[in-house]
Amino acid sequence: MTLVGEFDLIRDLLAKVNQGVGVGSDAGTQTPGRDGVWLGAGDDAAVVDAGRLVVSTDLTVEDVHFRRGWVTFAEVGGRAVTAAASDLAAMAAAPVAVLISVAVAPEEARSVLSELGDGIKVALREIGVPLVGGDLAASPGPVVIDVTVVGRAEQPVTRRGAHTGDELWVTGVLGGSGGAVRAWLEGAEPSPSLRASFVQPTARIKEARWLADRVQVRAMIDLSDGLAGDARHLATASGVRIVLDLGLVPVHPDLPVEDGPNLAMSGGEDYELCFISPPGVTGPCTDEFQEHFGIVLTRVGQVEEGAGVEVVGAADGWDHLAGGFDHFSVREGSY
Amino acid sequence: MTLVGEFDLIRDLLAKVNQGVGVGSDAGTQTPGRDGVWLGAGDDAAVVDAGRLVVSTDLTVEDVHFRRGWVTFAEVGGRAVTAAASDLAAMAAAPVAVLISVAVAPEEARSVLSELGDGIKVALREIGVPLVGGDLAASPGPVVIDVTVVGRAEQPVTRRGAHTGDELWVTGVLGGSGGAVRAWLEGAEPSPSLRASFVQPTARIKEARWLADRVQVRAMIDLSDGLAGDARHLATASGVRIVLDLGLVPVHPDLPVEDGPNLAMSGGEDYELCFISPPGVTGPCTDEFQEHFGIVLTRVGQVEEGAGVEVVGAADGWDHLAGGFDHFSVREGSY
Repeated sequence: MTLVGEFDLIRDLLAKVNQGVGVGSDAGTQTPGRDGVWLGAGDDAAVVDAGRLVVSTDLTVEDVHFRRGWVTFAEVGGRAVTAAASDLAAMAAAPVAVLISVAVAPEEARSVLSELGDGIKVALREIGVPLVGGDLAASPGPVVIDVTVVGRAEQPVTRRGAHTGDELWVTGVLGGSGGAVRAWLEGAEPSPSLRASFVQPTARIKEARWLADRVQVRAMIDLSDGLAGDARHLATASGVRIVLDLGLVPVHPDLPVEDGPNLAMSGGEDYELCFISPPGVTGPCTDEFQEHFGIVLTRVGQVEEGAGVEVVGAADGWDHLAGGFDHFSVREGSY
Repeated sequence: MTLVGEFDLIRDLLAKVNQGVGVGSDAGTQTPGRDGVWLGAGDDAAVVDAGRLVVSTDLTVEDVHFRRGWVTFAEVGGRAVTAAASDLAAMAAAPVAVLISVAVAPEEARSVLSELGDGIKVALREIGVPLVGGDLAASPGPVVIDVTVVGRAEQPVTRRGAHTGDELWVTGVLGGSGGAVRAWLEGAEPSPSLRASFVQPTARIKEARWLADRVQVRAMIDLSDGLAGDARHLATASGVRIVLDLGLVPVHPDLPVEDGPNLAMSGGEDYELCFISPPGVTGPCTDEFQEHFGIVLTRVGQVEEGAGVEVVGAADGWDHLAGGFDHFSVREGSY
């Protein structure tokens, strides 16, 4: 029997990504392991000790979220894990475990999974959790990766809780990921730093927990749809109006001045944090934050009574209607 | 803006499937809800109260796991949930929450999601849990559905724990799902009962917990790869040999005598339970089980020293090498 078996591929993937982490394809011990993983991959389901559980899932589809000409599958795997983990960061939750499902054509399953595994492994190390499960299916279509993250938070930070007078803050610089995609779509190669924004984003897990400990984070979201769209989610959930000052938005330095703000507002997938805190509490922490994490913390707006998002300082023509990034609003079915 | 928005589609799906369940797209309350769901869909992640957590994920891919000519998308949605929930049953776990990711072509997203939602809703009612999250992506390829189930079990039943002398049991009748697929592949229409085995399987959650309470279930698995393949998983995990008696296997009554056992052994996706218990403890419970759940409980083999699976009573030519069902062993990339 020389056919490639599903179980072999899963075993190979698990062995690779969990190497040295203490759980793996044969981690069916009857006692709790490191980080509360009681039973890892290899049974019908994984078992994890968790008090208050935070769960989220994030899809990555070939030719929608990435193209082969742009990135390696290792980069795709790492990015898929980070994108999902970013949702835990947005709740100020600590990751506990990850499950990954992959649909892939049988004839390339082994090579694609091997490469994905390289990137998944690095990303899992970064967030310090094991792969505890997943599924694998042959598919006649594009490679599809679905990452489910399981986390823990006694006091999750949600999208609601903003008060009138509060401040809106973001971590890092924005628009880099969208800038990389735009370069590729125009047939150009993005700068190394823009490219890294797309292929190696960081899930701001430590940053989120630091902020939740230091400042009163009333509401938080991760920037996956662009600042304008994600601010709208916060405004809607909190029942407030958010005024965004385009002149304050920290734009990736490699983006051209004329459309950097546009990409920051609607480019999406920067996976930085966007949060709301009471007036005056975050400002005094910005230096310490930057020293600790190496990224900036910037006030970009404020909370007012009302509804929706208002953008001020938009003299250079940002299109308010463009809103956040939404795959289903793109007629071409891809970026 | 007349384009169909991703957020609208997700909201519609959540509203539909969670109707009357008490959580939904706006379920971001700050207090624990019914069944420990603290924060439902609509934030970056869902929050669930759970002690010992059991998680699993299950992929369904168009033209691999189903074809449009065979089934409706409502049936596909229900079956996808049931297949994932079946992994919780196999651990004797109680479901707590479900997350569903769907990749679908933009032009049919609204109709496909609406139909999927009808079936998902029914299946979630059946297992009594809400949809708390998921993701949606445009895809140029086949419809892909990934269902993650989150459950709870203080004493999960794993695949290891079988002892020499133990008995192997299965719930229900086997081969129905495989029989339906075979009929479709031959251009025929399966009998209503065979069809139901494929499109409306039951996750044996109540049955599993009843068994775990009544008999000493040492090891358990759900039948998704066919009895031969799944028995092999039990044997490997437990470090024992399993002797399967083909003459004892309860075959679906609509299957022809000549190949019913074959379909039962390798057809896969019946989602019945296969478990191991000490000699003599399950036999006295079979009548009560059947009365309670309306399905049979049948002893099909025993545990011996050694390794692997041995099939006896296979005079009618069951092919030992065929083993369990494995998508990647099918050269055609589908059934």
